[in-house]
Amino acid sequence: MAAREIDSPLWVEPLEAAPALSRSSAATLTEQLAQRFTQRIRQRLMAPGTRLPSVRECAKRHGVSPHTVVAAYDQLLAQGLIEARLKRGFFVRELAAPVAEGRHHTAVTLAAPLDATALIRGMFHGMGGKPAPGLGTLPPDWLDLPLLNSALRKVLAQGDPDIVLQYGHPSGDTRLREALAQRLQDFGVRASPQQIVTATGATHALDIISRTLLRPGDAVLVDEPAWAVEYARLTQLGIRLLPVPRGAEGPDLDVMATLAREHQPRFYVTVPVLHNPTGNSLTPRAAHQILTLAQQHDFYIVEDDTYAHLAPAHLPRMAALDGLQRTLYVSGFSKILTPSWRVGFVAAPLHLVERLVDVKLLSTLTTPAVLEQAIALCLTQGSLRRHAERVTARLDAARQRTVRLAQAHGCDFVTPPQGLFGWLDTHCDTDALAQLMVDDGWLLAPGHLFMSSRQPSTLMRINFATCQDASFWRAFDAARQRL
Amino acid sequence: MAAREIDSPLWVEPLEAAPALSRSSAATLTEQLAQRFTQRIRQRLMAPGTRLPSVRECAKRHGVSPHTVVAAYDQLLAQGLIEARLKRGFFVRELAAPVAEGRHHTAVTLAAPLDATALIRGMFHGMGGKPAPGLGTLPPDWLDLPLLNSALRKVLAQGDPDIVLQYGHPSGDTRLREALAQRLQDFGVRASPQQIVTATGATHALDIISRTLLRPGDAVLVDEPAWAVEYARLTQLGIRLLPVPRGAEGPDLDVMATLAREHQPRFYVTVPVLHNPTGNSLTPRAAHQILTLAQQHDFYIVEDDTYAHLAPAHLPRMAALDGLQRTLYVSGFSKILTPSWRVGFVAAPLHLVERLVDVKLLSTLTTPAVLEQAIALCLTQGSLRRHAERVTARLDAARQRTVRLAQAHGCDFVTPPQGLFGWLDTHCDTDALAQLMVDDGWLLAPGHLFMSSRQPSTLMRINFATCQDASFWRAFDAARQRL
Repeated sequence: MAAREIDSPLWVEPLEAAPALSRSSAATLTEQLAQRFTQRIRQRLMAPGTRLPSVRECAKRHGVSPHTVVAAYDQLLAQGLIEARLKRGFFVRELAAPVAEGRHHTAVTLAAPLDATALIRGMFHGMGGKPAPGLGTLPPDWLDLPLLNSALRKVLAQGDPDIVLQYGHPSGDTRLREALAQRLQDFGVRASPQQIVTATGATHALDIISRTLLRPGDAVLVDEPAWAVEYARLTQLGIRLLPVPRGAEGPDLDVMATLAREHQPRFYVTVPVLHNPTGNSLTPRAAHQILTLAQQHDFYIVEDDTYAHLAPAHLPRMAALDGLQRTLYVSGFSKILTPSWRVGFVAAPLHLVERLVDVKLLSTLTTPAVLEQAIALCLTQGSLRRHAERVTARLDAARQRTVRLAQAHGCDFVTPPQGLFGWLDTHCDTDALAQLMVDDGWLLAPGHLFMSSRQPSTLMRINFATCQDASFWRAFDAARQRL
Repeated sequence: MAAREIDSPLWVEPLEAAPALSRSSAATLTEQLAQRFTQRIRQRLMAPGTRLPSVRECAKRHGVSPHTVVAAYDQLLAQGLIEARLKRGFFVRELAAPVAEGRHHTAVTLAAPLDATALIRGMFHGMGGKPAPGLGTLPPDWLDLPLLNSALRKVLAQGDPDIVLQYGHPSGDTRLREALAQRLQDFGVRASPQQIVTATGATHALDIISRTLLRPGDAVLVDEPAWAVEYARLTQLGIRLLPVPRGAEGPDLDVMATLAREHQPRFYVTVPVLHNPTGNSLTPRAAHQILTLAQQHDFYIVEDDTYAHLAPAHLPRMAALDGLQRTLYVSGFSKILTPSWRVGFVAAPLHLVERLVDVKLLSTLTTPAVLEQAIALCLTQGSLRRHAERVTARLDAARQRTVRLAQAHGCDFVTPPQGLFGWLDTHCDTDALAQLMVDDGWLLAPGHLFMSSRQPSTLMRINFATCQDASFWRAFDAARQRL
């Protein structure tokens, strides 16, 4: 690893298998080792609080002398990247915010985004050709590039200058909102195009909702486990998180009732169908009970249906039960068409639409109409539906294979395998496992990333589409042995 | 106007010349008149606090009896849309937030977005074929649709699945960031691609910066006059605005120094070149003095160079003087290629990049790579430069014509005419004028929209590209007579 990589900009280097330390490099082994840790820490692949391997362990792993490791750790100490804790070893320090910003940030607001970004970062980069078990999306070769290109070319051929050369409609492209209103009927959700506001992906829709409904200090009910970006966003907005345990039976309604009574949450944000990471879906009865609680305690439901196109249509949607009275329904196309176009939307109670549009205007003005029109074509011409049928059939087969492999390698499913994600008990510390395996170019999604408290966990999320490869499970076994 | 329009969704109906009230309609004249006001109020074309015309005036304008007007105003009173103030007349009420939200919003956070949206809304809709004097962008027929389509088709033809079918790079497409780094050198701004973060338009870049650097209660220096969306965004984030008067000589540096000393602002957000709405640009000396103040009082400069492509390259950029040490440079392509693609960026000091990317991830994850690559092509193939040269030559000619027309109709330029916008003194209340002219389908940008305090004003922003038409100036004269 060349010396320049110490100064390499963040986010820029793709995540790749780290090469062995080289004795022929211009840099000494100590320098190379220190640089490798420096990079991992600065890129947040080793989060603050992570314990470094013991000197003996590290020496063995990298085939160097203990002296070399001690010297490398000394360099990291001198740079302020790690700290020694008496009798416990070396730990990654909290990265200091630049001095000029220091006065404005508390540990609370900064801590949350940090950990999530390591995983997110992995999602954005190629993994040196290896399938990524921690990936949150379908692998590119499962998606349909000609379908996307053909839809976009058709929109270009229509080329209406009034649409292409002006700001789009503040609520989003009219054709897309009409197509979505139609499509939502498949799930029993009745929304007029006027109730729909498009966004730069479902993430943006969730962000718009949060900024519209919340003020710093407000409380929000969240599932635990859940996707780290949701925790991070709410924390960054100064929101108090109220985690509700979610297991195979759905969210713990007793806990939810107690929290609602004691904290008057503004909303409950949840993925009712094919939940990330557990893969489970609410029963109609649970959905009804949650809505009853929401009415009693006057909070909104923010229903994140990101995996809509991978799920059977019969699964109950909160927005369908509720008639979009106190439910805001969010979805997008990252999990079925492509994550790179960033097209998502929210369908909301009519009285909230105006304020959602205002916040959208303040955040991005409008959204790219050309991509929204191409998505509308995919929806209305049936090509999205046919593609989704092919993908779900393929995912069903992949899930069966992956489940067999995972169980054969000593893992247990915490919840029955469904949808894109499996939620596994590996019976080992998955944070330590992830740190080990990333060195070999395998991206894992360890359980602590899905916990609001980020406590260490033996759980792990896997992507059924990218874990069918026996080579991963062999690497997994080998890494577990080394823990 | 049909009865259904009372319930018509917000944002959806294009802004068009209101037809005369019809005696053959199924709705009575009273109902039609009440509905027209209801719509204007709900769409915020009449802002809270706006005085309705007197009964006599309204009767005359619409050719109905005073009795009809009184009955219509009664309906509006009953709906809670207006209020009577003793001896002063009828005024539009503050639109009540829904009860569930009431406890969370103060007038301060809601008030700001309201007023700006009327103008913004106009920008997004066709104006029934009439040129829009209040428009903030170039009219579509000045832009180059084939150029955009050709660039996008080339990107589709290259169709790299790893780019199209995965999340884009968190900082934004690599090719675009390289092309931007190159292009910024034309302005003397030296930024590496690693210092550049793309966004869903310049607005998103400004929003990311605000959320990264600010916490509720912080203070920010703003120009006054300035673009209303900037005030609205900062107010929505709970920021204290510190307006610095900006005239023909640039910002008032004495005021800035005093405010900086007394309030410790986090940054000064400004359009140094072809400022919106005054059109003026900083002198090198003013830019230097502002930077000196920023160093003394330790605040950042957020340089919004939205009109970069319409300005001569020699005009001084703060980021060039400062070497991107405490300046964040924002720009985009809405004013030269198309507002609908929403491609913008920020070039920032390296130590801020990581945090900007985190906030970008929380707000939209990534940005659409396919559009960013098409913009990169326009930049690297020289087609953007050639297009910009054609547009600026055309704008120069339009400006000359418009200046003559404006002066011939009794208007004075507050600042020397430059760039896209003229900042005019009309010697009449431009808010009242705008209310009158919108009925005939003319969208104006009255001065109060550019004031942080929103006080009434005789000033008005005009778009040089859309005010060359003598028919507008005739309508302007006629409306002024009716005031």
